[in-house]
Amino acid sequence: MDVKGIQRRLREFAGERDWERFHSPKNLAMALCAEAAEVLELFQWLTEEESRRIAGSERDLAPVGEEIADVFIYLARLADELGIDIEEEVLKKMEINEERYPVALSRGNAVKYNRRV
Amino acid sequence: MDVKGIQRRLREFAGERDWERFHSPKNLAMALCAEAAEVLELFQWLTEEESRRIAGSERDLAPVGEEIADVFIYLARLADELGIDIEEEVLKKMEINEERYPVALSRGNAVKYNRRV
Amino acid sequence: MDVKGIQRRLREFAGERDWERFHSPKNLAMALCAEAAEVLELFQWLTEEESRRIAGSERDLAPVGEEIADVFIYLARLADELGIDIEEEVLKKMEINEERYPVALSRGNAVKYNRRV
Amino acid sequence: MDVKGIQRRLREFAGERDWERFHSPKNLAMALCAEAAEVLELFQWLTEEESRRIAGSERDLAPVGEEIADVFIYLARLADELGIDIEEEVLKKMEINEERYPVALSRGNAVKYNRRV
Repeated sequence: MDVKGIQRRLREFAGERDWERFHSPKNLAMALCAEAAEVLELFQWLTEEESRRIAGSERDLAPVGEEIADVFIYLARLADELGIDIEEEVLKKMEINEERYPVALSRGNAVKYNRRV
Repeated sequence: MDVKGIQRRLREFAGERDWERFHSPKNLAMALCAEAAEVLELFQWLTEEESRRIAGSERDLAPVGEEIADVFIYLARLADELGIDIEEEVLKKMEINEERYPVALSRGNAVKYNRRV
Repeated sequence: MDVKGIQRRLREFAGERDWERFHSPKNLAMALCAEAAEVLELFQWLTEEESRRIAGSERDLAPVGEEIADVFIYLARLADELGIDIEEEVLKKMEINEERYPVALSRGNAVKYNRRV
Repeated sequence: MDVKGIQRRLREFAGERDWERFHSPKNLAMALCAEAAEVLELFQWLTEEESRRIAGSERDLAPVGEEIADVFIYLARLADELGIDIEEEVLKKMEINEERYPVALSRGNAVKYNRRV
């Protein structure tokens, strides 16, 4: 099932339950951010090294997978309510990034990662 | 291009620039949350009604589309680094939600939306 | 007890438990954001009107008060670890805001609230 | 100036500009979370070690101080609009934490930090 298929099924799910009235873009943006913070919370006390190591552990990955799904679901709902084509926006952004950070200038150069602080 | 295709291209993009060392799951979870908050910021002073109305305005949608792309990109990178299959997780979560909120009990009933406060 | 008194007590609390090694500014910034999102979550499905009304309900306020305390605690810890004087920074910011938004120009004018979207 | 003094001045600031209508608890919770994410963003690509080192650099601390002020301001506004006494809540929470994590059991024991993942 592709992104549009998932969006259609999520829209039906909300519609059948009469939940669209809760799904204003404002509220969906809040839910999106709250779910992204649940992902964040899973990593807050781990070292970077520990965060890489959990890739090998099914038990550690399960809650991450669940929170990632929640983020995706609200992102898909928000885009759907606003009529935004996620894949189109992502491809557009990837092209912008390829122009903004040319390989020759970016290799071994973390300027993107040192803009602030 | 599907989710896996996007993930492959993002992985190559990071690899070519030698940026993988910044892309620990911990850091990607931070970037994901920071980008979700940029979506949130666009809606923070709008009423719910105003947030619905921007669906009709190309000028208002442009920044939302761009931030949605950024959220998607970091979500895709994070899942890819951990070996999590996003679509599989989303489908699993949708099935859980269908069992948790049966239509008959959920219609005209906002219990999910009233758990707290 | 003032902000500095609270910070001292929190520092001792962490020190006695040998938890300072978890309290890098990076980790504290993550915990701060995760706690702010717990506040957000309490309001995500409420209308603005409903969110104003909970001021009268002790039962509804209890979880908000608890999450507000958590945000304050991590904010105080973060500032303390970095040697940032919160009150000084707040006063400085309030002066900047008073210059940036003069009353005469700002009354009945929501330009601050319409910068984007 | 103490927390209540800051809250009074912020309330007047909003009132003089007729901005209270934007300051529903729902909107303030969004602004709080968006500002906390700006703190987060400053640390997202730093190692923990680098995040500790910025304590010595005035240039690096300046943006952190400014974002910390913004978080404090919205936290103070939110508590004020709801009639929540921040310091009282913080002291209550600190007592709860002292009972929940006794020194003897918590030393050299990161159970709080290993609850998930």
